[in-house]
Amino acid sequence: MASNNRSVVFEGVKDFRVQDLDFPKLEMPNGNKAPHGVILKMVATNICGSDLHIYRGSFPFKQGAVLGHEMTGEVIEVGSDVEFLSEGDLVSVPFNVACGRCRNCRAGRTEVCETANPDVACAAYGFNLGDFTGGQAEYLFVPYADFQLLRFPDKDQAMDKILDLAVLSDILPTAFHGLMEAGAKPGSTVYIAGAGPVGRCGAAAARLLGASCIIVGDYDQDRLNLVANNGCETIDLGKDVPLTDQIEAILGEPGVDCAVDYVGSEAHGIGAQSDELLPAAAINQVLDATRAGGATGVIGVYGPDPIAPTEAEQEGIFPLEFGKAWIKSPHVTAGQAPIMRYNRELMMAILWDRMPYLNAMLNPKVITLDEVPNAYEVFNEGSAEKYIIDPHGMLAS
Amino acid sequence: MASNNRSVVFEGVKDFRVQDLDFPKLEMPNGNKAPHGVILKMVATNICGSDLHIYRGSFPFKQGAVLGHEMTGEVIEVGSDVEFLSEGDLVSVPFNVACGRCRNCRAGRTEVCETANPDVACAAYGFNLGDFTGGQAEYLFVPYADFQLLRFPDKDQAMDKILDLAVLSDILPTAFHGLMEAGAKPGSTVYIAGAGPVGRCGAAAARLLGASCIIVGDYDQDRLNLVANNGCETIDLGKDVPLTDQIEAILGEPGVDCAVDYVGSEAHGIGAQSDELLPAAAINQVLDATRAGGATGVIGVYGPDPIAPTEAEQEGIFPLEFGKAWIKSPHVTAGQAPIMRYNRELMMAILWDRMPYLNAMLNPKVITLDEVPNAYEVFNEGSAEKYIIDPHGMLAS
Amino acid sequence: MASNNRSVVFEGVKDFRVQDLDFPKLEMPNGNKAPHGVILKMVATNICGSDLHIYRGSFPFKQGAVLGHEMTGEVIEVGSDVEFLSEGDLVSVPFNVACGRCRNCRAGRTEVCETANPDVACAAYGFNLGDFTGGQAEYLFVPYADFQLLRFPDKDQAMDKILDLAVLSDILPTAFHGLMEAGAKPGSTVYIAGAGPVGRCGAAAARLLGASCIIVGDYDQDRLNLVANNGCETIDLGKDVPLTDQIEAILGEPGVDCAVDYVGSEAHGIGAQSDELLPAAAINQVLDATRAGGATGVIGVYGPDPIAPTEAEQEGIFPLEFGKAWIKSPHVTAGQAPIMRYNRELMMAILWDRMPYLNAMLNPKVITLDEVPNAYEVFNEGSAEKYIIDPHGMLAS
Amino acid sequence: MASNNRSVVFEGVKDFRVQDLDFPKLEMPNGNKAPHGVILKMVATNICGSDLHIYRGSFPFKQGAVLGHEMTGEVIEVGSDVEFLSEGDLVSVPFNVACGRCRNCRAGRTEVCETANPDVACAAYGFNLGDFTGGQAEYLFVPYADFQLLRFPDKDQAMDKILDLAVLSDILPTAFHGLMEAGAKPGSTVYIAGAGPVGRCGAAAARLLGASCIIVGDYDQDRLNLVANNGCETIDLGKDVPLTDQIEAILGEPGVDCAVDYVGSEAHGIGAQSDELLPAAAINQVLDATRAGGATGVIGVYGPDPIAPTEAEQEGIFPLEFGKAWIKSPHVTAGQAPIMRYNRELMMAILWDRMPYLNAMLNPKVITLDEVPNAYEVFNEGSAEKYIIDPHGMLAS
Repeated sequence: MASNNRSVVFEGVKDFRVQDLDFPKLEMPNGNKAPHGVILKMVATNICGSDLHIYRGSFPFKQGAVLGHEMTGEVIEVGSDVEFLSEGDLVSVPFNVACGRCRNCRAGRTEVCETANPDVACAAYGFNLGDFTGGQAEYLFVPYADFQLLRFPDKDQAMDKILDLAVLSDILPTAFHGLMEAGAKPGSTVYIAGAGPVGRCGAAAARLLGASCIIVGDYDQDRLNLVANNGCETIDLGKDVPLTDQIEAILGEPGVDCAVDYVGSEAHGIGAQSDELLPAAAINQVLDATRAGGATGVIGVYGPDPIAPTEAEQEGIFPLEFGKAWIKSPHVTAGQAPIMRYNRELMMAILWDRMPYLNAMLNPKVITLDEVPNAYEVFNEGSAEKYIIDPHGMLAS
Repeated sequence: MASNNRSVVFEGVKDFRVQDLDFPKLEMPNGNKAPHGVILKMVATNICGSDLHIYRGSFPFKQGAVLGHEMTGEVIEVGSDVEFLSEGDLVSVPFNVACGRCRNCRAGRTEVCETANPDVACAAYGFNLGDFTGGQAEYLFVPYADFQLLRFPDKDQAMDKILDLAVLSDILPTAFHGLMEAGAKPGSTVYIAGAGPVGRCGAAAARLLGASCIIVGDYDQDRLNLVANNGCETIDLGKDVPLTDQIEAILGEPGVDCAVDYVGSEAHGIGAQSDELLPAAAINQVLDATRAGGATGVIGVYGPDPIAPTEAEQEGIFPLEFGKAWIKSPHVTAGQAPIMRYNRELMMAILWDRMPYLNAMLNPKVITLDEVPNAYEVFNEGSAEKYIIDPHGMLAS
Repeated sequence: MASNNRSVVFEGVKDFRVQDLDFPKLEMPNGNKAPHGVILKMVATNICGSDLHIYRGSFPFKQGAVLGHEMTGEVIEVGSDVEFLSEGDLVSVPFNVACGRCRNCRAGRTEVCETANPDVACAAYGFNLGDFTGGQAEYLFVPYADFQLLRFPDKDQAMDKILDLAVLSDILPTAFHGLMEAGAKPGSTVYIAGAGPVGRCGAAAARLLGASCIIVGDYDQDRLNLVANNGCETIDLGKDVPLTDQIEAILGEPGVDCAVDYVGSEAHGIGAQSDELLPAAAINQVLDATRAGGATGVIGVYGPDPIAPTEAEQEGIFPLEFGKAWIKSPHVTAGQAPIMRYNRELMMAILWDRMPYLNAMLNPKVITLDEVPNAYEVFNEGSAEKYIIDPHGMLAS
Repeated sequence: MASNNRSVVFEGVKDFRVQDLDFPKLEMPNGNKAPHGVILKMVATNICGSDLHIYRGSFPFKQGAVLGHEMTGEVIEVGSDVEFLSEGDLVSVPFNVACGRCRNCRAGRTEVCETANPDVACAAYGFNLGDFTGGQAEYLFVPYADFQLLRFPDKDQAMDKILDLAVLSDILPTAFHGLMEAGAKPGSTVYIAGAGPVGRCGAAAARLLGASCIIVGDYDQDRLNLVANNGCETIDLGKDVPLTDQIEAILGEPGVDCAVDYVGSEAHGIGAQSDELLPAAAINQVLDATRAGGATGVIGVYGPDPIAPTEAEQEGIFPLEFGKAWIKSPHVTAGQAPIMRYNRELMMAILWDRMPYLNAMLNPKVITLDEVPNAYEVFNEGSAEKYIIDPHGMLAS
């Protein structure tokens, strides 16, 4: 067994490095034994848009800590209280850390696990949320493995579709959750704010669930092309035309049933305001796009931002067009996605070939661990690719 | 305006004839004025499997009454309390008659409208359920038109897809309802009992909503081929192999998440019992096929059957394997589908090209009114086609 | 039949007068015939907190228009397309005007009816929402009567409980809706912001549905006493203690499962900020009070307010602590309540004596039409009573 | 620590004895170590109606095995992978054994846990469902303790209400589940078949959740009196009057919104058939009592019964009036209750005094271990009491 663990480490804002760290142990961040845990050999471990918040400094992170929360791996060691996983199993790791034992986990609300993080009812790998070591590395410790891990039923079959399955750890279920928050169902009309990897997964998930008219808004024509070529309508948010007018031109009415914000607080305005950072722009956009009687999901991340320019934003206060929306009976759901609520079913959809368009819409690019620091730089500039790290050279690129 | 109305009339068991009847009036079956009603010119009016119950005599019907409950038509006359429909509108008629004013209709349960039929809380066109004249005819009276009718937004666009849209009146929403009853969602595994037109719509609807493994069971290879060629797995129920073994061979486990009975009480057994009429065979089949924790829909029709061989069946008593299923926590939902709950969204899915496989799975055959009596004979023998009547020669065949 | 109609008329801000107007006709505000309508003789017609917005001028209203949207009355005339109501029926009028024929009404979303108001998908009596004449009067026209009206099954029984039943028109179902928005169920812990009539109905409704710990926050000790004497805990928002600390002192943890804002944009801060009008204070209070994994309802009214001091508020933009709440996965639902979704069941609960505490919590005061202008003055100053107008002297006070 | 464990042991049909057995170990029935388990000292451990099936021989059971599945106890030993429980904690044990790690447990469907019982996806203490030792004893081993156990927040407060809290282990959540299956909500009309302890808990739970008219049917006047004295209507099933007529006499209409079978297959007919054992009588009764548009729950136990008189019943086939019910769109849900879905909220309702009628409706009788064999005899004859065993003399009787 390997004696060390090459990992992507945070040395500072815009300073990520690949370093040799110690091989993981079956131990919680507080040093307690974790008989419920396993050690995984990473097979695919992705870069996520939310990692860019750390890269840019808007999410504080610990110097020396390891990045990454979108992991797929092979079980190589199991704790004494792991009953249903064995060495050799190929598994997807939900990015939320969840104990499976608290009130919220029992209710399927693993995104707000009450115990895994002593500071707040929410824990994740590779974030400032409970000090769990991230997975952009060769090996990873995962606690509560029986509860948390999704085992692929057939390893060979899974390796054939690994680039699709690799997004089950976060962005495909996350994107799907946004649609569920927004009440999407067969025949729904959908507006998707943002054509980054999560937004594109949202467009793919909307196709899977039978949405009718799927409209994606972004500024980047390369990203928009990925969805336009795969059954979606697009809106160029750089154009100085009100969003509801652009929706009406496509749909015949100015609002959709379901609108989802896949952007978060690093949003820009529409048209003339495209170059302006407006923290509430994306959520106000989706509130505006939702018809009376529809619903709105907010997958994009909002929070107190210590490096925001205004005191209000630093405290997490946002100027929402709530009074304008109120007459439409808004339903707004936000927050992290409980990955476990969706990942098994989405895996089944992939394994039974129901998302043939996923790869083309996602546009994954396989890279080595050594290429990671550069990939962050490129991704931070805006890219139409989804980076999937291949620490052990197990993926066909 | 036409002064008469050629219609398919019930003269007796296996004796359906085309006759000239009076042009419909804005009047309820009891003779009350119906200012809320409209008269439609039929554009497409289908033959349904449930019409065969009348044909064979297991549903009593009135001599001289008109058949048909799957109608698509053009508005040619509107009552004085119709506000939102105009002459020329192309509309789909939900097969349930529903007032939109009673407790059940207010709650969206239009399949159990409390007022339209004085005998029982359920009304339909062309049945012994409230004496509403059927629609296998040139013209039709439809009450509560503003509430009930689904208007196609663009007539030309609709005529281009009319053979798909024609099944919005009954079998596509009905089939979809069966899946909803059974809890189907993206990634679900599904077993569909029966590859008749409704079962094939069920298979198409399961694809639309993103089901993973869709298994269809029937005895007729032509019907099975229609779904096998369009992304479904099939089971030949004539084979003398237990259903759960056949499911396990396909899926790797012996039960599905969602199983739907699209057959009803005119069912046969499996394998050696294929030739035997066993009224509870289909429902017991779907109970058996459903995994512990799954759910079961019953779209097939059950009821007291006056011509059934046993007294129990005549009273509507069926030998259900309920005690065998109980340990699996069965959820069983049955009854007619509330068409209005689904038809608009399914129309949107069709109009936005999300069901490209529907036509191939359904296999519609356009016929004239004069061809109807013969079509019933053929359909009664078993056919892999769905008959769509074209009373005014408006459909491309 | 009466030839005129004494009514409470808006003559200007803080200038409401009782005037003789014409007897109502079966006609829509645009002059169209309304065969679906009825005329009611008002039996009880309440003053609502939202009428105060008109009184104070923050909701624009037409000079000469009639106030009132909480009506209970007797049918005295029916249109030609009314089938299920008769003269003499005692009915409750949902304050939303809803056609029962549009997409939203069909789906039970009567609070966002798409047709009754040509300006926006929302209509109500006695508001600037579709020009429907209000019901603080002797007589009232109600359209779409079969669809909209709730008939009491027994008139004598209903008159015995009329002060309880009188709140079925708006505030009891509205309050209940807030709890449903917030996911309340048996055993839930609930925080209710505001002990006005709607908040007190919320407390009563929370008892009805089996909530465990029900905490009500307000500044007014008289209002708080009404709920404290009837099974609720109370928080004095005038105290300079953080809300979550006060909740923790009662409950043992700092957040509740369900929190509902029954205040709206005319809110004040907590403790030292009690005297300060802070438009987002109530919604931020309920976001703060909701535990991670809980949900939040917003029944209080928000909107663009033309007389608000800042441009943001005039446009309906509110500084929400959304970024602070995001990590808790907030579910926020807002808007008017679809009264018809709840009024029948709540009527049943009242008729079967399941809310013996309602009267004591609500504290109704019966007044004559002539007393109305003065009652508005008193209510505007803050009052622990709920005014119920008795235009025909039919109520025991 | 005690070195042995006095327990109620099955020696044969109608032959239960109290014996000294070995003190429990942290071990699964198959002998595997259970670091996730705890040992409890029993504080209250009830006799359940379903134990009578074992007593009478209709559920096969192992000679020498221990009875009991309704346990409340104190933690006296914890396994090495138990993180959130400590010695001294007072806890309620859900009668389902559930791993918290399989697909069904992850989805909250603990009543169909896929792993705890190798034979079928369902496990329970003191039954032929996974060989878990029962809890009518001094001490008990409980696996997956962090996941499964409900800890009372304050031990003294809990001991004050212990006779109410003792039914959280099974019959109160079970009864509540039946109502949820049947769609009960505030204002619903409810029919409860059977006034045994579970049916009486159903009546109490219906009150808690705000049901309007609650009708309980049974043959035993003592049992009926317990509910009649606490806000419910009653029907004497011994009277030779059709059930729907009796319902109509109370309610004014012949069907209820929600009907629940709390009896199971050991049912009798109505009126003249009161003395006849009719295995499908209770489920047919609730199907009959449910209005079109309502729903039906089946909490009573059905199953293949090896000692039933007919081959059909032995195989678990029941003559259901399904064809008669079909036109009403039946929703039937059956099976064991997932206790964990409800027990925490019901505990909260009890702790906050929202069920002051529970004790009077339940009518508990505290007995010693030695009194158990006799109590079974009496209970088997029919009794209006609920037996709660007090193995360590900790309960006030």
